[in-house]
Amino acid sequence: MGRQYSNTSSIQIWQPNPALDLPIYRQIEAYIRQKITTGEWSAGTRLPSQRTLATSMGVNRSTLVTALDNLTAAGMIEGRHGGGTYVSGSGWHSMAHAALPNWSEAAQEGWYYPNLPEIQQINQAEFRPGIIRLGTGELAPELMPNEAFNKILQTLSSQTRMLNYIEPQGSLALREALSIHLQSNGIQASPDSILIVSGSLQALHLISVGLLPRGSAVLLEKPSYLYSIHAFQSAGLKLNGIAMEEEGLHLGHLEHAIHTLHSGNDENNSESFPLLYTIPSFHNPTGSVMSCRRRDELMSLARKSGISILEDAAYQELWLDHPPPLPLKAMDQEGRVLHMGTLSKAVSPGLRLGWLVGPVPVIRRLADIKMQTDYGTSSLAQEAAAVWFTDGHHTTHMERLRPELRKRRDFMLELLHRYFHDIAEWATPEGGFYIWLRFTAEPLSTRKLFSACLEADVLIHPGYLYDRLDASHIRLSYAYASQDEMERGLMVLVEVARSLIT
Amino acid sequence: MGRQYSNTSSIQIWQPNPALDLPIYRQIEAYIRQKITTGEWSAGTRLPSQRTLATSMGVNRSTLVTALDNLTAAGMIEGRHGGGTYVSGSGWHSMAHAALPNWSEAAQEGWYYPNLPEIQQINQAEFRPGIIRLGTGELAPELMPNEAFNKILQTLSSQTRMLNYIEPQGSLALREALSIHLQSNGIQASPDSILIVSGSLQALHLISVGLLPRGSAVLLEKPSYLYSIHAFQSAGLKLNGIAMEEEGLHLGHLEHAIHTLHSGNDENNSESFPLLYTIPSFHNPTGSVMSCRRRDELMSLARKSGISILEDAAYQELWLDHPPPLPLKAMDQEGRVLHMGTLSKAVSPGLRLGWLVGPVPVIRRLADIKMQTDYGTSSLAQEAAAVWFTDGHHTTHMERLRPELRKRRDFMLELLHRYFHDIAEWATPEGGFYIWLRFTAEPLSTRKLFSACLEADVLIHPGYLYDRLDASHIRLSYAYASQDEMERGLMVLVEVARSLIT
Repeated sequence: MGRQYSNTSSIQIWQPNPALDLPIYRQIEAYIRQKITTGEWSAGTRLPSQRTLATSMGVNRSTLVTALDNLTAAGMIEGRHGGGTYVSGSGWHSMAHAALPNWSEAAQEGWYYPNLPEIQQINQAEFRPGIIRLGTGELAPELMPNEAFNKILQTLSSQTRMLNYIEPQGSLALREALSIHLQSNGIQASPDSILIVSGSLQALHLISVGLLPRGSAVLLEKPSYLYSIHAFQSAGLKLNGIAMEEEGLHLGHLEHAIHTLHSGNDENNSESFPLLYTIPSFHNPTGSVMSCRRRDELMSLARKSGISILEDAAYQELWLDHPPPLPLKAMDQEGRVLHMGTLSKAVSPGLRLGWLVGPVPVIRRLADIKMQTDYGTSSLAQEAAAVWFTDGHHTTHMERLRPELRKRRDFMLELLHRYFHDIAEWATPEGGFYIWLRFTAEPLSTRKLFSACLEADVLIHPGYLYDRLDASHIRLSYAYASQDEMERGLMVLVEVARSLIT
Repeated sequence: MGRQYSNTSSIQIWQPNPALDLPIYRQIEAYIRQKITTGEWSAGTRLPSQRTLATSMGVNRSTLVTALDNLTAAGMIEGRHGGGTYVSGSGWHSMAHAALPNWSEAAQEGWYYPNLPEIQQINQAEFRPGIIRLGTGELAPELMPNEAFNKILQTLSSQTRMLNYIEPQGSLALREALSIHLQSNGIQASPDSILIVSGSLQALHLISVGLLPRGSAVLLEKPSYLYSIHAFQSAGLKLNGIAMEEEGLHLGHLEHAIHTLHSGNDENNSESFPLLYTIPSFHNPTGSVMSCRRRDELMSLARKSGISILEDAAYQELWLDHPPPLPLKAMDQEGRVLHMGTLSKAVSPGLRLGWLVGPVPVIRRLADIKMQTDYGTSSLAQEAAAVWFTDGHHTTHMERLRPELRKRRDFMLELLHRYFHDIAEWATPEGGFYIWLRFTAEPLSTRKLFSACLEADVLIHPGYLYDRLDASHIRLSYAYASQDEMERGLMVLVEVARSLIT
């Protein structure tokens, strides 16, 4: 998980045809009129800016303005105070029909949070041609196992399959393959205690609505990836950040936070047991690894204080130098740990395939909710994932991927050393995707840095996405950009940073 | 959509090995002990009944009881008042660890509703060997396009693909294919106004959290499939059922309900516009088709009264005698109708592939929420679906499927005529999967009918799943059971029914 999408994707590209007899501005008029009268652009829809529209249509701004003026005169669109052009609520149909559906307003009614504005900006920019993505938490397309997937599809095409609904916990073949795979990470989990999900994000969502009462608190590292999404907040949960130190989560602070929760300051929580969300291996965004000793201490504290743990192991296998300590789940003998894994980071985000390991009652309850949400993960994705593990593709792929990622990491570190040694500091990540860069020169506004880089077609992830109060970090990723892009991108970054410092 | 899952799936089958030196009861003890000490069966987990356990393990009940007695003596499990054996909260680990995670309790904390008990019973029974499924809303495995899917996978295996995250509204290739496909149903929808979802159930879920304020009312036909699931209720919405007559929804009643909502009897709703959920073609469970005239009148009423419409077109293409009237969306010129389609009914439920058509602001808002829920539908399923349409598989399949389904429908009608003519009545469905059978002899408890049939390994869907107060209907489906099963199943049904009448 590391990418979010905005609700402002560009409207599909249409261009007028100069070969037609109809003048260009009339063609534009007809196009927009058709969008409105079919209801696709319903009352209240905001049109893209004139610049955006003119560029995407490949026409002069003045031609566009003529078309828009005519549509305005016809009452189909209207300017509004504060800027922007909107589809009118009346005019293009009989006035007798007073009650037009205003979906734009309705779209603000539901209780689910929209994505953060900065996240929306990032996601829009990701599709911009020529953009250099220095923060993207996703493997570059060339690092993905395309050939292996063609082989898998070949294999699947000669098998009979089950096109009917499949078992609620997910395909047994896949759960059996995962049960074996998890053993290589020290986790004993029978297929019964595994739930297949459409990526870890869905697991978070299911846990938030299925296990945790509204208003309850979730403890987590600060900074954390979880702050950049709304999975938990939309379910009415409160995030309670705990500071990190080099070995991982600060246990003194954690203990204090648990104590505060238990002492009933928070009425809603007095009855419920707190849940700790943690990314012990190659943490997002800091890249740090919780030490073996800290894991032991954390498990003891959990036992003593009665908290449960949600372990996000998305990066567990993406070690570059040596494997990290075993997952917390491998140390769990009470069913205290829920363990999330995914194919999205190391293999393919588009496949949407993840798993959750936990006590049977939890897995069943969440399977029931998953069935009520989407009737299960696509059978095709599950079949492909089962073959991915059973035919040994996973092992081969990881062995090929690690040296490639290591090369990219080392290259980025070299560039950082060359350009940033006097204005920033960072640790060498031993795996995962991220470098958590801290600017040592104060004051430097990472907001301004983000905007100025974006102007120059370089995309970074500012630290405040992961900790609202952070003012000095950015998250870099060596997984996505090519070496050439890294070099060009980091040169832009350092130039912008220096201009902001002086 | 027509199948739900329970949270009581059977625990995976394990059996003791008589060839081992260890006595059978010791093997059982060791097996359960291991389940408990790894936390898979966490504190508070309820064990299956002795009968179920003994049967699934293939052992004598007395052998099982010996093992359970030993585990009870060791404090690992305990009987409870009111019956049932549960994993203890203590005993198998140091007493110092007072705070064990009780996930079974936690699993009742989240605010998402569990499935209805009857639905849970049905879903459990569906996996019982030898069961005859007379109500299942799903194509029989032999009616599914297995060969076509092998061809599609073959095609995909020679293409390069995008394993990265895909566009939030879904793959453009698929949306383009759907845009063309929808034209054959009279719907003009550009790819911009289409959202790919993991089945219609997910569309319902997204709408419920993204467009409708908590506490608002959703109007719908009564009976309706929507009563059998919790998609809307779990989001805090209220269902407001409207009676049906032969031509479809009773518009007088609908108008009255809208008026009541508008007059502000319901404080929460005075501000919001009501949404009507309807299945105009081959309604689930009644099988009825809304007439062309009624569709016109409904659209007029919607315009006049300002309501919006959510059209569920899951069965639209499953006509058997002649196509139904065009979808409501084809008559919509204001963006008043949201239109849901799916591959689950006519093609493959396991693929989890559906679409929602609507005004761009709605589609964007829901795409944003979908990305926050699961980061999109599996790319593999989307690729397969795109090829399904563009390579002409869909048309070929529908042409082959219709005569097969017609044969099954006619066969079931013939059996009904032979066995049920004096105790029940029904209409001939012109498409879809369902016959809505009404028992004319009073009183007949459909609850007792359901249980007694289940005892005899015949599964029917009682009418009260679709209308809490219904006491005389059952939903039959001719899509799943084979002709032989239909004959045997209906003979059991009529026998049980007659025994309950006299």
